[in-house]
Amino acid sequence: MELWYSQLQTDNIKFSIKVKEHLYTGKSPYQQIDIFDSEEMGIFLIIDGIVMLTSKDEFIYHDMIVHVPLATNPAIKKALVIGGGDGGTVRELTRYSSIEKIDMVEIDEMVVAAAKKFLPLTAGRLDDPRVSLYFEDGAEFLRNTKEKYDLIIVDSTDPIGPGEGLFTNEFYQNCYNALTDDGILVNQCESPFYEKNAKEMRRAISKINRLFPISEVYQYHMPTYPSGHWLFGFASKKFHPLHDFRPEKWTELGIETKYYNTDVHRGAFMLPTYVREQISRVEKSE
Amino acid sequence: MELWYSQLQTDNIKFSIKVKEHLYTGKSPYQQIDIFDSEEMGIFLIIDGIVMLTSKDEFIYHDMIVHVPLATNPAIKKALVIGGGDGGTVRELTRYSSIEKIDMVEIDEMVVAAAKKFLPLTAGRLDDPRVSLYFEDGAEFLRNTKEKYDLIIVDSTDPIGPGEGLFTNEFYQNCYNALTDDGILVNQCESPFYEKNAKEMRRAISKINRLFPISEVYQYHMPTYPSGHWLFGFASKKFHPLHDFRPEKWTELGIETKYYNTDVHRGAFMLPTYVREQISRVEKSE
Amino acid sequence: MELWYSQLQTDNIKFSIKVKEHLYTGKSPYQQIDIFDSEEMGIFLIIDGIVMLTSKDEFIYHDMIVHVPLATNPAIKKALVIGGGDGGTVRELTRYSSIEKIDMVEIDEMVVAAAKKFLPLTAGRLDDPRVSLYFEDGAEFLRNTKEKYDLIIVDSTDPIGPGEGLFTNEFYQNCYNALTDDGILVNQCESPFYEKNAKEMRRAISKINRLFPISEVYQYHMPTYPSGHWLFGFASKKFHPLHDFRPEKWTELGIETKYYNTDVHRGAFMLPTYVREQISRVEKSE
Amino acid sequence: MELWYSQLQTDNIKFSIKVKEHLYTGKSPYQQIDIFDSEEMGIFLIIDGIVMLTSKDEFIYHDMIVHVPLATNPAIKKALVIGGGDGGTVRELTRYSSIEKIDMVEIDEMVVAAAKKFLPLTAGRLDDPRVSLYFEDGAEFLRNTKEKYDLIIVDSTDPIGPGEGLFTNEFYQNCYNALTDDGILVNQCESPFYEKNAKEMRRAISKINRLFPISEVYQYHMPTYPSGHWLFGFASKKFHPLHDFRPEKWTELGIETKYYNTDVHRGAFMLPTYVREQISRVEKSE
Repeated sequence: MELWYSQLQTDNIKFSIKVKEHLYTGKSPYQQIDIFDSEEMGIFLIIDGIVMLTSKDEFIYHDMIVHVPLATNPAIKKALVIGGGDGGTVRELTRYSSIEKIDMVEIDEMVVAAAKKFLPLTAGRLDDPRVSLYFEDGAEFLRNTKEKYDLIIVDSTDPIGPGEGLFTNEFYQNCYNALTDDGILVNQCESPFYEKNAKEMRRAISKINRLFPISEVYQYHMPTYPSGHWLFGFASKKFHPLHDFRPEKWTELGIETKYYNTDVHRGAFMLPTYVREQISRVEKSE
Repeated sequence: MELWYSQLQTDNIKFSIKVKEHLYTGKSPYQQIDIFDSEEMGIFLIIDGIVMLTSKDEFIYHDMIVHVPLATNPAIKKALVIGGGDGGTVRELTRYSSIEKIDMVEIDEMVVAAAKKFLPLTAGRLDDPRVSLYFEDGAEFLRNTKEKYDLIIVDSTDPIGPGEGLFTNEFYQNCYNALTDDGILVNQCESPFYEKNAKEMRRAISKINRLFPISEVYQYHMPTYPSGHWLFGFASKKFHPLHDFRPEKWTELGIETKYYNTDVHRGAFMLPTYVREQISRVEKSE
Repeated sequence: MELWYSQLQTDNIKFSIKVKEHLYTGKSPYQQIDIFDSEEMGIFLIIDGIVMLTSKDEFIYHDMIVHVPLATNPAIKKALVIGGGDGGTVRELTRYSSIEKIDMVEIDEMVVAAAKKFLPLTAGRLDDPRVSLYFEDGAEFLRNTKEKYDLIIVDSTDPIGPGEGLFTNEFYQNCYNALTDDGILVNQCESPFYEKNAKEMRRAISKINRLFPISEVYQYHMPTYPSGHWLFGFASKKFHPLHDFRPEKWTELGIETKYYNTDVHRGAFMLPTYVREQISRVEKSE
Repeated sequence: MELWYSQLQTDNIKFSIKVKEHLYTGKSPYQQIDIFDSEEMGIFLIIDGIVMLTSKDEFIYHDMIVHVPLATNPAIKKALVIGGGDGGTVRELTRYSSIEKIDMVEIDEMVVAAAKKFLPLTAGRLDDPRVSLYFEDGAEFLRNTKEKYDLIIVDSTDPIGPGEGLFTNEFYQNCYNALTDDGILVNQCESPFYEKNAKEMRRAISKINRLFPISEVYQYHMPTYPSGHWLFGFASKKFHPLHDFRPEKWTELGIETKYYNTDVHRGAFMLPTYVREQISRVEKSE
């Protein structure tokens, strides 16, 4: 049977996955959530019509969002995850025995419930005793929290709909305030290729650059995201992701990964010229 | 108007580009050639239903296929291009004044004619005086040539149809024989992500590994190829692409590029764990 | 969200319905069954990837398969339905108080179970006391039955897969044998437009023509079937659908219909020239 | 190669034809014109993204728009075609030796030029000596003409864009005025099935009903138009398409047709109940 999920990655580019079964559909107060099963990508999660994760390539995203900051500063003890309702970021964090506390703030409880039911692959560690779940707006949480974190990970959807408040100046300032002096901020930072994504990337970088003494961007190959060339922002008060990186320390931890390794860590910051130029234009315009 | 070109990247993944105009269709003795114009990707070339290049992202492919070997050994004087009928690889090669001779062997004259007419962006330097065009089978050419090259670039389609003979043991052996002692072989090496492509990658690597003392794989972000994570093979008799790499020498040349830079050069060889593991399984099985 | 069910009506024609939800998927020993909900067509049933019925246009099919024979001979008392697992044909038959007995023979119990759950619109009358359900092969049932029917309706899928045995000479002969002297056979008879369907139409007509003194074809507008121009065969031992038609008798029954009326009855037999010619070529070749 | 033209027949229904070649694209002051070649439908014409005609099923449309009025009144001598730039309506009219004069008023000269080049099948009789072509707005032409016609055929696109003025009260009044006492008006009248088309059908009928003593609607099976169930309006000052129809007179003319015949003529006016009800609601609301 020809049943295809399609995403218009731009108005003129369409990416489609053949579907075996539509496992779940639900409309929360925030967004529409759909979960499908497929031959090629396994089970996959769609929010407001956009691919959030597929079972086949989520390891790339979650490896890169977690192991890059943790390998930069293996002493991280307290982590905050904003968004990330599928649980994959928390799963990777729980693999570090040195981490003592993980707060996860997800606005949409329905995403977590659906992931727990249909995506144990990512949601399976949400019940780790170190994890506290807060079902509230991440921007609001950061406005009010008195807590200080060594790591904040902004694992958000695109800056449209409920993810929008996670791309503002005030939000990044509140992240800064909630970080310890050793603190690192990692944020989902879109892509440099299609102009629609690149514009959002530049906006986010421009705001973060003004606040943090160290601000870098790193890349990874994400097959189901537009263009496959996707970025995270790395901002920090003290640690530089390359200069302060001690690969042997991370290797000693013995964490097995499918995408990340200490060479990929370095390579991820080696950006193509056209990406560098976008970033340096942002910096100059400040 | 809704006119879409689609490629089934696997049986269950479809990538589609909205078309403004179908500029050219032709059937050569070897393959079907189509050229389209589009809003998002500009003019793009399809061979046997598969995206060969688009105006928007061809710079990535051609930067990486040419500048990595040239930056490893800037003394390259004689280059052979197998395939590459669109002319993009030759275009990048002609930017090096140190190169004295470029032979290009393309089996299908119709591809070159169509590219000259509709893709001056890539085909514009095919009339450089250093370039000699041979319209014949690349495998046959290498079987018979007495010439020795410092660089052979296999800029081929997938190993199906006319590209098939460019993925055999005999072909790689003939490449080896036609290389000088300083010689480097770069070849289009598919992708690690979808099994269909990964199988071909492993087959090619396995054959090259047995012949060349130095054999590495490097990656790049290619939005219009399946998964966006694509590879080239780098094989050599003497030069190692990282150990023998002198970035300052390439920088002195003052060649402007949109994707390649000397950091990207290093980062491209930093392969994700799951790609490394595929390659090391190939090596062990030898 | 862009989720589309598509049917390749021919290798080169695709018909697609935007899906709201995939309500059911199941694989019986005979076929794959899927039920969807949609904005445009309401709930719709797919068997082996082909549209069987949609809530929006099923009334056309079921009106035309039942009311044409019943209006030709309002004295019909015993009816046999072969196939028709969705229940729509039975639903229309139960509206005639003169009908005393309806046997329905459906090979696939899973279709009936799924229709009862998700398509009460068509399946809602399967529990009428006059209805007996037999879950067995229709061809086998007719081979063995001692019963005589005034009406046999072959409400089958296309002659591929489980529907295949319902398009053979032996099957039509057994239909003939199981009919009373007043008996009428109505069968799903594909379409004249696309060659793939037209070939099956001609094959079925050719077989029926040899057996029945009266054999006609009638048409209806079925938006979700290939070309929208679809046919039923009408074969009979005695009653001619036009010459023996007494419209006023049917009108007296006061049955309300959305597609069928006594003018449509006549018009349905007024076939376009190219359809007539296909049928007369079949007749001449006998 | 997977190249598909798609038409969103409604927001939720998509009809797609696999394309072999995009033969022509042009933008006139009025609309975008595209011509394609295909395996299944042959050459086909798209205006503003909508299927106007395909080589495979245009005979149905042109048979029904011309032979129904001509068989009702074989004495027609002067005909006016509004729109119909592909030439198919004129082609059918020229087959009647009794017709002395055919005026065709097409707003868009580019459509006629493109049809002459790529669609000789329909445009091949535009140079008949009885034909006069006027490249101007049909509504404006009728506002000013002093001519009287026995037949006006409104062979228009949908009532969006340049076709819009051909669906107004004033336009129909001017048609009335330009008709002889024996005059017949036939107009493209959309479809009863999808609400989007049905609304336009009811609007057109409502306007015509008020002006003409005789106003009927007839149907035909048009595979490439939305739902495949398509309508023409028949309005007249004197002739009724059934009561005044003398089939034997038309048969004597010996005109060979692939769709139309004198039975189809009658059957075409036998409308399904749900179509009749739409029309009678229109009549009641006047």
